[in-house]
Amino acid sequence: MTQASARNPRYDILFEPVKIGPKLAKNRFFQVPHASGMTNAAPHVRAAFRAMKAEGGWGVVATGACSVDPSSDDSPFPCATLWDQADIRSHAVMTEAAHAHGALAAVELWHGGAIAMNRTSRMTALSPSGIPWMASHVGFMSSARPRAMDEADIKDLIRWHAEAARRAEQAGFDIAYVYAGMGYLPYQFLMPEYNRRQDQWGGSLRNRVRLTEALIDAVREATGGRLAVALRISLQELRARPSDHAESEAHEVISLLKDAPDLFDVKMDYSVTDCAVSRYSPEGSHEPVIGFVKSLTDKPVVGVGRFTSPETMVSMLRRGVLDLIGGARPSIADPFLPNKISEGREEEIRECIGCNMCISSWHDGVWVRCTQNPTAGEEWRRGWHPEIIRKDREGQVLVVGGGPSGMEAALTLAKRGFEVALADGARDFGGRLRFEASLPGLSAWNRVTEYRMGRLRQMTNVTLYPESPLSAADVLEFGADHVVIATGARWQPVTCAANELPAGEILAPRVYTPEDLAAGVQIEGPVVVFDYDNYYMGSAIAELLAGQGLAVTYVTNAGAAAGWGIMTNEQPLVHQSFAAKGIAYRTLEVVSGFDGEAVRLAQIYSGAETSLAARALVIVGLRRGERGLYEELQARAGEAGAVKSLYLTGDANAPGALVHAIYQGHKTGRELGLAANEIIIRRDAPFAPRDFQMPEAAE
Amino acid sequence: MTQASARNPRYDILFEPVKIGPKLAKNRFFQVPHASGMTNAAPHVRAAFRAMKAEGGWGVVATGACSVDPSSDDSPFPCATLWDQADIRSHAVMTEAAHAHGALAAVELWHGGAIAMNRTSRMTALSPSGIPWMASHVGFMSSARPRAMDEADIKDLIRWHAEAARRAEQAGFDIAYVYAGMGYLPYQFLMPEYNRRQDQWGGSLRNRVRLTEALIDAVREATGGRLAVALRISLQELRARPSDHAESEAHEVISLLKDAPDLFDVKMDYSVTDCAVSRYSPEGSHEPVIGFVKSLTDKPVVGVGRFTSPETMVSMLRRGVLDLIGGARPSIADPFLPNKISEGREEEIRECIGCNMCISSWHDGVWVRCTQNPTAGEEWRRGWHPEIIRKDREGQVLVVGGGPSGMEAALTLAKRGFEVALADGARDFGGRLRFEASLPGLSAWNRVTEYRMGRLRQMTNVTLYPESPLSAADVLEFGADHVVIATGARWQPVTCAANELPAGEILAPRVYTPEDLAAGVQIEGPVVVFDYDNYYMGSAIAELLAGQGLAVTYVTNAGAAAGWGIMTNEQPLVHQSFAAKGIAYRTLEVVSGFDGEAVRLAQIYSGAETSLAARALVIVGLRRGERGLYEELQARAGEAGAVKSLYLTGDANAPGALVHAIYQGHKTGRELGLAANEIIIRRDAPFAPRDFQMPEAAE
Repeated sequence: MTQASARNPRYDILFEPVKIGPKLAKNRFFQVPHASGMTNAAPHVRAAFRAMKAEGGWGVVATGACSVDPSSDDSPFPCATLWDQADIRSHAVMTEAAHAHGALAAVELWHGGAIAMNRTSRMTALSPSGIPWMASHVGFMSSARPRAMDEADIKDLIRWHAEAARRAEQAGFDIAYVYAGMGYLPYQFLMPEYNRRQDQWGGSLRNRVRLTEALIDAVREATGGRLAVALRISLQELRARPSDHAESEAHEVISLLKDAPDLFDVKMDYSVTDCAVSRYSPEGSHEPVIGFVKSLTDKPVVGVGRFTSPETMVSMLRRGVLDLIGGARPSIADPFLPNKISEGREEEIRECIGCNMCISSWHDGVWVRCTQNPTAGEEWRRGWHPEIIRKDREGQVLVVGGGPSGMEAALTLAKRGFEVALADGARDFGGRLRFEASLPGLSAWNRVTEYRMGRLRQMTNVTLYPESPLSAADVLEFGADHVVIATGARWQPVTCAANELPAGEILAPRVYTPEDLAAGVQIEGPVVVFDYDNYYMGSAIAELLAGQGLAVTYVTNAGAAAGWGIMTNEQPLVHQSFAAKGIAYRTLEVVSGFDGEAVRLAQIYSGAETSLAARALVIVGLRRGERGLYEELQARAGEAGAVKSLYLTGDANAPGALVHAIYQGHKTGRELGLAANEIIIRRDAPFAPRDFQMPEAAE
Repeated sequence: MTQASARNPRYDILFEPVKIGPKLAKNRFFQVPHASGMTNAAPHVRAAFRAMKAEGGWGVVATGACSVDPSSDDSPFPCATLWDQADIRSHAVMTEAAHAHGALAAVELWHGGAIAMNRTSRMTALSPSGIPWMASHVGFMSSARPRAMDEADIKDLIRWHAEAARRAEQAGFDIAYVYAGMGYLPYQFLMPEYNRRQDQWGGSLRNRVRLTEALIDAVREATGGRLAVALRISLQELRARPSDHAESEAHEVISLLKDAPDLFDVKMDYSVTDCAVSRYSPEGSHEPVIGFVKSLTDKPVVGVGRFTSPETMVSMLRRGVLDLIGGARPSIADPFLPNKISEGREEEIRECIGCNMCISSWHDGVWVRCTQNPTAGEEWRRGWHPEIIRKDREGQVLVVGGGPSGMEAALTLAKRGFEVALADGARDFGGRLRFEASLPGLSAWNRVTEYRMGRLRQMTNVTLYPESPLSAADVLEFGADHVVIATGARWQPVTCAANELPAGEILAPRVYTPEDLAAGVQIEGPVVVFDYDNYYMGSAIAELLAGQGLAVTYVTNAGAAAGWGIMTNEQPLVHQSFAAKGIAYRTLEVVSGFDGEAVRLAQIYSGAETSLAARALVIVGLRRGERGLYEELQARAGEAGAVKSLYLTGDANAPGALVHAIYQGHKTGRELGLAANEIIIRRDAPFAPRDFQMPEAAE
């Protein structure tokens, strides 16, 4: 760890305590509720994940959405519950850990209404007026529609919130949220498209806001003023809606509720803009929507915007935009962000790159993953701390390959006390990122390289060898105790068959892969980009080529451009970008042939063929690990002077998104030299519900 | 329950015991492994679900896929595990229950290889040669690719199977499967597209089959011949592959392995054809692929084909196609299928309709749901038995509406002892099914009506009132103690907005909904079918209209036709059907206007508009519950003679797929007249892993 220096006095304001109703946050760093994929099924995994932020200096740490009743069951999307005594115990593990580090613990009480389709509980979904969400993406679709709530349902909803708030207090929470945002049930009452009621809960905005108000009152009453009550509200659509009584309906809502909660947590309405990829959206993008709130209320206001720069944070406070600096993604990428600012170690901040792997985890139904922070979700299971790595070994390690996994492995190994040599054939470290971060919108990804190289350059037990392509003989001659091969992967010029397996190469002129573009090859148009990788690369290359003035048609076997990008919230923005840049697209097709003049396309299910004039074809499909050096060293294992301890990691081992490459590199760094029984992986288990006779623990 | 009659002696052969290695199955009914969505997180839910089949007479009941090691983690898809002592205890709950009913218990040991992307365990996925599955559907995509296994990995895989087999024996299983099917790891070794190895595990078919053989041997050795060892193998692609040594590679594989396992469980390769919707595939569709197996081995053979007819089953045995009648879907729809045949009660069989809601549950990541059997998955949680309903009440119930939910409610209420009157305005009962089952391919859905009406017609406490549209006054005059309103829903002529909420009506001539088609309206072409419901109705109507000779363009806001139909395995077949019938399609668009001559379309993300000539527009989007009668009766609640006990159920309450309507009707039937505290819903919890200190149970 670097020697602590003094805090920059400009940042002192960030460390002022803030009163939130009856509670006092020790500073202005507020980890707002965000999805973690960790439900009550993994209470210790979750507690350790959240507690790490408390340890890292966040004044408040919050749960993600926490269902108040089985009528709000979001499965298969992970969601926490506060339904019974077992749930109380489950959350208490987290609140105790947060308190131990001086943080307040907040719980986001949640009812999804028409969005929570109750796939496990099988209750009929609730909604103000029976209006469903007609999702376009299959992952959000349901074959069931909600029912319209009657007066008894509304009473139930209020009661569920009160009961859940009481359980929250028993679980040790300090702040209880009412959640009127992101399309969930109280928000549905705010929106006339969902709320077509003609009773006291619908019609005028005064009526539409009544439920939110009632929920705040119920939570406050249930907890007798002992807990702070926060309102989380989405304001984007309301702000776009005119009001007779104020500048917009957003202004009117805040005015009506200005004294109701102890805290306003304000945000956007739509995950794609609320949690926007850096590819299309800069830091601080919420401000134009939520900036007005503080002018209408004396209660503290928290908001987010992927803040990683202390200067930006200070500006948000000084300009009166926010009272508390909300963090979701930056708190995952670096749980120790507050402490690092506090200790004058800003250059050590592991900045969020805005790739949205974190939100993809929730869409994928699993625990949170983070590109920058490979320890996220592993705090309890593997005992990984994002900052502290025990110095447990000596000896020399040669890491061959200075891409994402190589840099991460080198950094981890250096922290463990090894003498580390990191070699790369190129002049600059970064590997695949040298090209990828140059693609349209992806410059924030440079932070992956900058953070790691910044740390490595400061460590006295690390030697960097740029412009050093190594042969097997070179490696043997180097004579390190351990060798880590992190030579990355290369895109292949192979197509994809109807059975969804990679097929053969296309023998034609002007067939390219991203490797050719990285090497600076100039492409002739019109060009077809065939993407069956379906993450960012295909669409980013289409944008790159369109930016060069070429006529581009993007073709994918998936149902939309950047098919997997729906997981990272970027798919809708990719389509908007395509429209703006004049990029044509075709879906549900594979390239079945190319002769240098025309591309033949086949529909994936029917095989129906069409043809498209094109002078060039770029295939973004399969990467193959560069394993030549590894295999040669393995083959020479029997020789005198052979490498005794050889590891393969990152894309060279199993190609994947950055997050996977870095995770592999970190894991190799953690586990190098350990025996199998020194690697501990724990399995979590939930607390048993009250009405359930717990079976005896197995031996 | 109907009086038991004698078994048809033609069916005696179905009840002959069958020797499976060291075990004896009491009859030929074999519930083959199938996904249930119930993992070790819900051991009691799962045990009760499987045990119900044992109680219903199945000679063997099997688990679904059961991972042998954390390197095969299928999350977010539910999968069971056999990794440690806690898992043993979890499965033992099921085997004990199965044995109590005289069934054998089988476990499907499973490693997914390149298909199990280890989203939770975060291990790199394994594969023979690093070849990934490049899925077109986003739900199956990953941003990670597998690594190629080395010799040590193969040794591990064999060891994991052996260890899991030992745990399986401890858990009380009688039969352990090796699973070389459906694209999973041993299957990947069989396929040269996945397996490009040049060592003893790749190349010739003899080499490619070696891993499967080694796994069988390892499982047998680990269990010392005390357990039967089954091989589950997919044969469709192998059968299409020529062989120098046999009629096909499928023949060659079976010949090579003919003496290796104690049982062959043979099937298709691809979920879409293996578990095919009845819409496009009849009963017994596997036979052309798997029919040859018995000619090459003396070991017993089990296979499936959505068998519900005992005549078909007997034919499969007599013609030497199978030794054991495999059942997955039919065993969910009716766990008591064997007993009903045994007792001469064939007419009581609740026949699977092949809608594939069951497999959709797995794709949805949740417990199994069944259209025909609403008690599936609720055996433990709600204590629902599919056959036995306690007679606990007296009094008269009027059920208004003879559609799916009304019929199910009436049947359930009649079993509880109520005097039931079931009224419908139409001459025939069945509600929406009267039209829907007439659509192309959907005739099997008539079984929903036939089963329920068959039962209702035999019950002496049920009175049927066809052609009886009832007004509120009629209902009041009828004077029943309880009234259940099951008046269904109607399709609305409203479109869908860019924000994915239903929008307004389109004011133009020739705008239709499925209601118009049900009423026999003749449509003029060219016609656009705009589907934002995205289940079967839109594509079925497109097929209906194409069958009438019209030029049809199908438009959807989703990325493919029948967007949600990927869940039920029908989407690929819908696209094939569209191609065969000349139906054009457009995706990712909504209808933004229609003037009677042209349809205006808007891209869902960019808003880019295009136009399409059309004389008619059919909108398949939103259904709205018919709540008029319910609301009128509610409004008159204060009057003398008002209905005192009024229920709203099925589509009238919350429109949904058949499965939801029937579930609602069943629930209403179960809960009518009960106080809230009489309705018990239990929450399951897993057993704690061995290396984990179980927290004290909460009070």
